[in-house]
Parts: sequence; structure tokens; C-alpha cells
Amino acid sequence: MMLINGAADDRLEAGDRGLAFGDGVFRTLACVDGAPRLWPWQYACLARDATRLGLPVPGEALLLAELRQACTGLPRAVAKITLTRGSGLRGYAIPADATATRIVAAHAWPGYPEHYAQDGVALTWCTLRLGLQPRLAGIKHLNRLENVLARSDLSDTCVEGLLCDSDGLVIEGTLSNLFVLRDGQWRTPQLDRCGVAGAMRAWVMARLPVEEARLRPADVTEADLLFVCNSLAGIWPVADLDGRRWRDFQPLRPLQWALAQEYAVAATQNRL
Amino acid sequence: MMLINGAADDRLEAGDRGLAFGDGVFRTLACVDGAPRLWPWQYACLARDATRLGLPVPGEALLLAELRQACTGLPRAVAKITLTRGSGLRGYAIPADATATRIVAAHAWPGYPEHYAQDGVALTWCTLRLGLQPRLAGIKHLNRLENVLARSDLSDTCVEGLLCDSDGLVIEGTLSNLFVLRDGQWRTPQLDRCGVAGAMRAWVMARLPVEEARLRPADVTEADLLFVCNSLAGIWPVADLDGRRWRDFQPLRPLQWALAQEYAVAATQNRL
Repeated sequence: MMLINGAADDRLEAGDRGLAFGDGVFRTLACVDGAPRLWPWQYACLARDATRLGLPVPGEALLLAELRQACTGLPRAVAKITLTRGSGLRGYAIPADATATRIVAAHAWPGYPEHYAQDGVALTWCTLRLGLQPRLAGIKHLNRLENVLARSDLSDTCVEGLLCDSDGLVIEGTLSNLFVLRDGQWRTPQLDRCGVAGAMRAWVMARLPVEEARLRPADVTEADLLFVCNSLAGIWPVADLDGRRWRDFQPLRPLQWALAQEYAVAATQNRL
Repeated sequence: MMLINGAADDRLEAGDRGLAFGDGVFRTLACVDGAPRLWPWQYACLARDATRLGLPVPGEALLLAELRQACTGLPRAVAKITLTRGSGLRGYAIPADATATRIVAAHAWPGYPEHYAQDGVALTWCTLRLGLQPRLAGIKHLNRLENVLARSDLSDTCVEGLLCDSDGLVIEGTLSNLFVLRDGQWRTPQLDRCGVAGAMRAWVMARLPVEEARLRPADVTEADLLFVCNSLAGIWPVADLDGRRWRDFQPLRPLQWALAQEYAVAATQNRL
């Protein structure tokens, strides 16, 4: 089910700047019984991204109510919140009188295979390199052609690919963030020049002492342990990266356990 | 008036990948009495861009008929053709069964002040720098947040701003292409790493001997003459660039005259 500005609808004004220019932001959320997982982190990311683009931030209560409504009849759903600049004149400049569009949609969510989190996933390096744009770095905005191309380059059997920027620094997966452990220190790519700073990344960084750093491919291949994460996948250990293999994921289990606890607590609060 | 896949409509499926990811291309065209100016160049650019993104290219006759219909009652119109990947599943990867969406829209077009083409315009350097993305360079795709931000940085009185890439090379205006003359040689920025290769740029390059080159800001400020161009503006001499001034635009008049002739011939053909 889909709500546009609060009304059940599945069609949008074709003059919307979200379509014309990708002038908007979005979030993808896992919802169980109508309650979004990692909501505090999701909302913080949404508010951060909307603010950076100068879009108004909808209230939490409104979004939670709309998510619940959109998830009606879907015990496990993947929901999407999209905020755009709304309809406007033809030009690039942001109209003074723009009224934002808010889209809340949900679909049934089969989930990922359990063994991804247990046994890890195989990754590959993407050939596409992300352009540098500090003004948009970190934001989950609607300009996602780089992800579309990178994802479409991957074979159907490949779970995820890692992306470097045009300077050759490691940034993220096509739909996940990356964390690497070496000599006892967790690090994740600094996302001040490109990339998407996801809600799961924020949750992990609130749990682990992590350094944001400029990582080279060698920092990844020489890591003792690494994982990718996003709000739907949770935490996936990396078992293989173009032939380089990792097998001991025990050090990750406490973090995966904490995430499962986070989900359980949120679900309990939702029922109260 | 707006046509979506040939039917009069102004609303689009909100699940369209054009909105979700900016997964599509567009063109902006000046239409007089329902006939688009520079059509051969516009269509060539549209076909080039759609092909590069793997989108099907609609036939010329179909688009011309839809442009004429969209321009009904509008003697002078600015039209827009948008092609998107269509509705699809949630993920980035291009669905095998995607059916493209085609939007043809037209609005009344007041035109720009005549003196821009006669006396030239004042430009400024934008602070935003374009990210490098060879896979998307040249394409007029729907990921236009860089243009939105760059345009919004400009004051309301500023006609156009010039953009450099993250390496500091000059690329284009926020809504125009750039040509510079020095020592008798015309040059225009090479658009193989970022930027939009517009239809008017293609027309100019078919008329003038132009070298595509990596231009530094000094190559622009030290030029003997420069102009910006696009399909709505035509050809605007640059009279001022942050205080550096040019006054003799006589060498540009033959090109402007040829463009006016191009328009006149196209209009005549349209009436036959």
C-alpha cells in the first residue's frame, strides 16, 4: 500500500521535482507488524538528509502512523519513505513556494537467506567508481544512477559489490556500508566526499568504537574481519572478496546478537 | 499539456524508477507552432542518451506527433521529453521486464530577453564542483541534484554560472554548454568525465571547427571571446565573468544568424 501526502494513492504528479531532477531523499525500512526497525536511527538519517537538501522534516508521529497504515496486512514488510521537493516550475533553481511531497509505501518482504548472516557472503569489486560530491556525500538522495549501474554490472548470483571513489578509495557496497577490523581496530570509510551514510551504519557506530577513515583496497583485503550492513540485511560477514577468504566470524556474533535484541525490544515496545 | 505513454495524463505511477533512482533521460525543447527547434540534434542526443542507459528509443514520428499534440494551443512552448526505465521492483538492478515510461509535456514559453543574445550576459564561477563519472558523462539523465544545488547557489539576478569538475577543469554552465575562442581556435570542454552534451552544442559543433579540450579557468578568462548556449537560450555571448569583460561580439553574429536561419527553415518545413 502507498500513501502520498497521507492519502492512499499510487500515482504522483508527473511534474514533481523528484522525477525531474531526483530532488529528494528516501529511506528503506524493515517493518515487522507495522513497526519499523531501527526507527530512531532511520528518523535521524531522514531528518539529516532532508535538512541538508533544505526539505522540511515530517514529524515522527505522522511518519510512524503512515508506516503502520501502509503496512496493513503485511506482517513483514519493506517500507520506503520518500520526500521530494514537490511540483515546481521547469528550472533547476529551487522554487520559493515549493511544497514537499511525502510518499510512504510498503511491500511484502521475503527477507534474505539466513545463511548470509551466519556463513557470510561473497563480494566482488565493482569497476564503476563513484564521483566525488561533498555537497551530496552521505545523503540517501534520489540521484542513484551510480548504484543502478554498479548493481547492474554484478552477476545475478553476486550478493554485493564494493565501490571505490574516483580517487580509488573504498567507500561502500552498492546497497550497504562496510566495516573492517584490523589489529583490533574497527574502521569504516569516511563518507564526506561521496557515499550513503545508512541507518544501520549509524547503529553500528553507536555500538562499536569505530574510526571513520580513508581506506584503500589493501586495507580491506588485508583486514582480519569485515562485514557489510544495511537496514534490510542486518549484518553480513564477508566470507569471500574476489578469492580472498575469511572464515572466523565469531568476533561478530556479539554485534549480531545485539542487533537481534534491538529488534526484539522495538517489537515489544510496539505491542505495548 | 502532458502525455504519458501517449495518453493525456499528468500523473505517473509513484513506483517509477525515474522517481526512485533518477533512472531515465530527458530533453528540453523550444517548440514554435508545435514544431521543435533543432529536432535532428535533439533526437540524436535523446537516442544517444537512451541507448547509453539501455532504454528503448521511441520512433521520431511518434515523438513529433506527441510534441505537436502536447503543444496544442501554445504558439511558443517549452516542451520536455522524459524517458524512464518505468515501474519496477524496489532494488537498484535493472529489471529484465522493465517497460519504459515516456512523458511528453509542454508549457507556454515566454522566452528570454532579446538583449541577452545581442549584448551578452554576465556569468559567475560556481563554487560547487561536478563529480567525475565517465559512465554517465554527457548524458542528460535525471540525476540533476548537482545542477539544482549549483543553480540555487546563484543569486536571482545572475543569468548563468560556470562549473568546474572536482579536478578544477571547466565543464559547462548550470544549464548551458560553453565555447571559447582564443587565437582563432574555438574550443569547448571535453565531456567524457562529467557534464551534459546538449543538442545546441551538437549543432554548434556541426557548424564551427571546434576542438574538444580539457580547459582550465585561465583558458576561459584569457579567451578572446566566449559564449554559452542551450536549446532555449540559443547563443549568448558572455559580456562579463566575475569582472572580466568582453565587448566585441561581431565575430559571433554569423553563427547567431545561421541559427536564426536554422529555426526559420525548420518552421517552413513544418508548415509544408
